[in-house]
Amino acid sequence: MNGYPIPKATLGRLPQYLAYLKGLPELDGATISATAIAKGLSLGDVQVRKDLAAVSGAGKPKVGYERKALIADLERHLGYEQLTNAVLVGAGKLGRALLDFDGFAEYGVRIVAGFDCNDHVIKTGKHATEILPIKDLNTYCRAHHVTLGIITTGQGSAQDVCDALVASGIRAIWNFAPCPLKVPSGVILKQENLALSLAHLKSQIS
Amino acid sequence: MNGYPIPKATLGRLPQYLAYLKGLPELDGATISATAIAKGLSLGDVQVRKDLAAVSGAGKPKVGYERKALIADLERHLGYEQLTNAVLVGAGKLGRALLDFDGFAEYGVRIVAGFDCNDHVIKTGKHATEILPIKDLNTYCRAHHVTLGIITTGQGSAQDVCDALVASGIRAIWNFAPCPLKVPSGVILKQENLALSLAHLKSQIS
Repeated sequence: MNGYPIPKATLGRLPQYLAYLKGLPELDGATISATAIAKGLSLGDVQVRKDLAAVSGAGKPKVGYERKALIADLERHLGYEQLTNAVLVGAGKLGRALLDFDGFAEYGVRIVAGFDCNDHVIKTGKHATEILPIKDLNTYCRAHHVTLGIITTGQGSAQDVCDALVASGIRAIWNFAPCPLKVPSGVILKQENLALSLAHLKSQIS
Repeated sequence: MNGYPIPKATLGRLPQYLAYLKGLPELDGATISATAIAKGLSLGDVQVRKDLAAVSGAGKPKVGYERKALIADLERHLGYEQLTNAVLVGAGKLGRALLDFDGFAEYGVRIVAGFDCNDHVIKTGKHATEILPIKDLNTYCRAHHVTLGIITTGQGSAQDVCDALVASGIRAIWNFAPCPLKVPSGVILKQENLALSLAHLKSQIS
């Protein structure tokens, strides 16, 4: 627990540790060793020690981790105490697929609303997450303390949407539109390129 | 041009170089320097030199790159001479979004068919890419020399689908189902975790 951001690979394993610890029978004792966790999850001993050290100070030499404290630390790092709110703009096929995806909560993120400029989508949407008109973006984001924005529009409107998200107080943007975006310093931009992921996979077999 | 796999970041820039070179007026000369390309694309000089050296031997000191040869080398590395065929299994929302995505061709990959076990999807699909019954997977993949497989099914059927893809001669699998899969050695597996990408972005602002 050194205050540095947790590496992505470690972050990816946290839900696994959490599920494992929560699934253990109560009578298995109040403490558990990193070695026992590694064995239970078929992971490397060193890796588990490193991962847990990054998120918890609850481990003691020769005793191991106090289970309840470790669970609390994992939940805190995964953001379970306070879910982070995200909005998505562009309710096309990919956007609706992400709106319906239920895996984000596992990492403490909730997509609270989708936005689109297409009235048809807004009126007929039958998704669990509501789709609102884009003109309400700013008011909504301010009211719901939204800090993450996801762009799944086409290339043509992505920069306008990006600017609107920044103006709405969003601090990090995940862009699926296939075009580079400009954000002011202080706002984090992650460009997703699904085609490149597939191309890279291809390049490994050819 | 050293025979090593091209790094993902370099691969990601190749379409940009290609589009730039193809967009230059004919009268701009038969050769172009890496410096001119770097300037035209607002990229670093050193980066452009490295990227191009990884894909082409057409550069000469003090002369630069022969444009036609460089274009041909870029197209070859992007697989334009021979598109790689991919299939997708699981025509839910995410699957259909990927089937409709037209950005893969830019990297020399074509999703030639989707497969699903849901008859309803198969019958009513109005997508450009056809959706076929899963029982035809093996025959189809063999007939169309498919080497890439994309899994967008739920967790429950992902391993069965993975095994079926391997049995159909697929050499690399891109898995969107939120569960680890087992593949035999020689088959490449890339696990996509969209929730983790968003979680990692979140961790950078909190």
